[in-house]
Amino acid sequence: MVKSPYKELEKYFRRIGALNEVLGILNWDMAVVMPSGAAENRARQIAEINLIIHEILNEPEIKDLLAEAESIPISDKLMKANLAEMKRMYVHSTAMDASLVSALTETSTNCEMCWREARSENNFSGIKKNFEYLLSLVREKAACKADALDCSPYDSLINEFEPGIKQSEIDILFDDLLRILPDIYHRTLERQKRVPSPVHPKGPFSIESQRKLGVQMMKRLGFDFDHGRLDVSLHPFCGGSPGDIRITTRYYEDDFTQGLMGVMHETGHALYESNLPKKWRLQPVGQARGMTIHESQSLLIEMQICRSTEFIVFAAPLMRAAFGGHESLWEVDNIASLTRRVIPNYIRVDADEVTYPFHVILRYELEKALIKGDLLVSDIPSAWNSGIKDFLGITPPDDGQGCLQDIHWFSGAFGYFPTYTLGALAAAQMAATIRHQNPDAQELISKGDFKVFTDWCARNIHAKASFLGTNDILVEATGHSLGTSDFHKHLESRYLA
Amino acid sequence: MVKSPYKELEKYFRRIGALNEVLGILNWDMAVVMPSGAAENRARQIAEINLIIHEILNEPEIKDLLAEAESIPISDKLMKANLAEMKRMYVHSTAMDASLVSALTETSTNCEMCWREARSENNFSGIKKNFEYLLSLVREKAACKADALDCSPYDSLINEFEPGIKQSEIDILFDDLLRILPDIYHRTLERQKRVPSPVHPKGPFSIESQRKLGVQMMKRLGFDFDHGRLDVSLHPFCGGSPGDIRITTRYYEDDFTQGLMGVMHETGHALYESNLPKKWRLQPVGQARGMTIHESQSLLIEMQICRSTEFIVFAAPLMRAAFGGHESLWEVDNIASLTRRVIPNYIRVDADEVTYPFHVILRYELEKALIKGDLLVSDIPSAWNSGIKDFLGITPPDDGQGCLQDIHWFSGAFGYFPTYTLGALAAAQMAATIRHQNPDAQELISKGDFKVFTDWCARNIHAKASFLGTNDILVEATGHSLGTSDFHKHLESRYLA
Repeated sequence: MVKSPYKELEKYFRRIGALNEVLGILNWDMAVVMPSGAAENRARQIAEINLIIHEILNEPEIKDLLAEAESIPISDKLMKANLAEMKRMYVHSTAMDASLVSALTETSTNCEMCWREARSENNFSGIKKNFEYLLSLVREKAACKADALDCSPYDSLINEFEPGIKQSEIDILFDDLLRILPDIYHRTLERQKRVPSPVHPKGPFSIESQRKLGVQMMKRLGFDFDHGRLDVSLHPFCGGSPGDIRITTRYYEDDFTQGLMGVMHETGHALYESNLPKKWRLQPVGQARGMTIHESQSLLIEMQICRSTEFIVFAAPLMRAAFGGHESLWEVDNIASLTRRVIPNYIRVDADEVTYPFHVILRYELEKALIKGDLLVSDIPSAWNSGIKDFLGITPPDDGQGCLQDIHWFSGAFGYFPTYTLGALAAAQMAATIRHQNPDAQELISKGDFKVFTDWCARNIHAKASFLGTNDILVEATGHSLGTSDFHKHLESRYLA
Repeated sequence: MVKSPYKELEKYFRRIGALNEVLGILNWDMAVVMPSGAAENRARQIAEINLIIHEILNEPEIKDLLAEAESIPISDKLMKANLAEMKRMYVHSTAMDASLVSALTETSTNCEMCWREARSENNFSGIKKNFEYLLSLVREKAACKADALDCSPYDSLINEFEPGIKQSEIDILFDDLLRILPDIYHRTLERQKRVPSPVHPKGPFSIESQRKLGVQMMKRLGFDFDHGRLDVSLHPFCGGSPGDIRITTRYYEDDFTQGLMGVMHETGHALYESNLPKKWRLQPVGQARGMTIHESQSLLIEMQICRSTEFIVFAAPLMRAAFGGHESLWEVDNIASLTRRVIPNYIRVDADEVTYPFHVILRYELEKALIKGDLLVSDIPSAWNSGIKDFLGITPPDDGQGCLQDIHWFSGAFGYFPTYTLGALAAAQMAATIRHQNPDAQELISKGDFKVFTDWCARNIHAKASFLGTNDILVEATGHSLGTSDFHKHLESRYLA
């Protein structure tokens, strides 16, 4: 029997899939339980696994098999989609020569370490030289990948995180937002001034009670603790691998909402990963579609469900049971108002859903300019500060609360930021569809029943894995491609109705 | 410049070293934090990493490089020792053909699962067929490795765990023990009858207090929490990798000694791993010498130090501070007597140091016969029960407490059991040397100062890694090769003086 080149490729990629699962555990371990002194060892272990994946993808046989497989018509749609995803992984891995790969690895590690120091010292100039070198390597990478993918350099970087959406499309969406958002933002601030401020229930909220409440909510949402965990880390994340999904949050004894909303957000990511089709688990096409859809799943849970009044109707009594305190503090209006406060904030991760897109759009504009060569590294702080001032009316007191706050650029990640807001748009669009198709969906939330939402996502989003492109998934699920109108309506109705 | 074949080999083995560290984390994770539903995924991940190591060792270049390197005289002793260890790893990995390797992997996984069920149901016949097949494959493996290593089949199995000691040497040592032990055992039981039984301090002993006491002891012994952790698992073990050493124990609320002695025992293993020379960390010669020396390090801490009267003098007040209760319960004589009770027990892991060797010798005799073909699988239960009866005077009530109690055989591990008792002999020999060279060593224990012992081990044992053979390490450190006389003296003086 003649061997099928496609089937041969599947064998290689199954191995890569297993190695990616190993990376998931090593990264989770590093963030959650690893003793501090083991950082250097861990970096070497992760580098070794990445190198093996790189070596597998760069074996001459893969190139030949891909060419052969592409030359034979494949009738099976899913296999065809898998082959396309294999090709994408292959291109990303082989576009750069070995010397650029190793220079990037080393420089981004150095720059990230340097960034930790610069941020804690509020000293942008301390990182300038390192970052300039890293940026030059990233631009070189973008040029290589642009060639290989036949797109613009910045698009080639977006493609690493979100292969389905191009800069030209993001520009249109973000321009739309910039026409809508300032007005919503200012009207919301005005409106907030006219109503009494919410009262914070008083802590301390014991970590154990916060954790129990989080677990209770996760179970309600369908998180399967036989195939996952909840832990604590400095920054909340969803890690591990399908079949072993590990989310984290962080708890503050004086404010339970952050820990809880972290849990809800990451549970959204977790449900996506755990509902990916088992049969394709180790193949490229069986992976999550990209960061836009991923973020839509966390924001659908966190923003569309858990910050809605109906959710608070359901959750407030459970919060009170968990933490105690006077009844009046746990009134629905008070808690709802607490979880939906719009406040200009220097820090992206602390921003509400109205101001969050401003943070993203600023970073998006700056990183496009950096990749294009239109913005000098030394001009980042002033461009940043004037951007924040324009959008939010506030000026960061220092670079630590300004252009040094995020790790992304300083670890070499460009093209990631826009997916946060693209995800928010997609979440609003999906939620609107779900509510339209199921008029009682929102009402059921108040009874703690989220199945209309989670089942819809499992069926229309999670089960699709990477079988389709981002926009095709959205069109099939919601009837139209990614737009801003449902997000606009959502903000109007939640903040200004 | 001509490339040195030895240096080229080092590069390959450095990669294997990093992959072995990854296995350390995956195994720790599986035993300590992994959700139950992820077992299948984890098995696949571990199999993938093992396969990669196997593939590296089986690359034709390795064979050529080994031959080249061996043909050039190496003056550096450590490099020479490293080359020998590389060759040993290579031989173990390449001695079997691929079909035998995969049959063994699959069958031992199946048999292990089947064992869990058979043990819980006390049903040896349920595992008989599976185990017969596994044994036939192990015998095949032993034949292949015997060829490759030029030794007997059983010696080739011992070599996986303890490359420095052969069956013929073990036979002599264990025959010695069988001449000494029955008498000590019976005299100790007689003597115990004549003194009042110790009184158990009454629990519950909170897990948190037990943990704190364990951490306190670990720090005293020099465990570095910047490069390690203490956790809980079903069976205590020492895992992770040098630089990130993770020990576990298990706590019982009604008996704190088991959890604490588990901590002390595993700390002994941990100190060995953490003191291995950093420079050689990823090379074969930089690894622990074998299971005899490894077990000697845990037993030196647990048996030689922590069950000594001087240790109880130091620890009893800390125990009392941790757990409270009447002063009389924490009197040194009472606690010492509690931690040194000799009681015939069906279960090896619960056995005291006097009866433990009986358990080991029985398993050793049976597994030699199984590998040789002199014992049928169906005859194991009766051979086991009559052996326990002969040695200890008791008969296991069922196979769960008899021949099904240990995982070793049913996961394919033969040749491991003797190292437990070889380790006990080595520990006694080292402790005797330390006390002889440092007359105040034992007295210092009562002040909580263990540095004489731990420094001696760091210098004379840990720093040697695999630079020398097991017996050479012992000869350099203690002046003679492994024997029974110090162990004999130790038991006489502790139990019969």
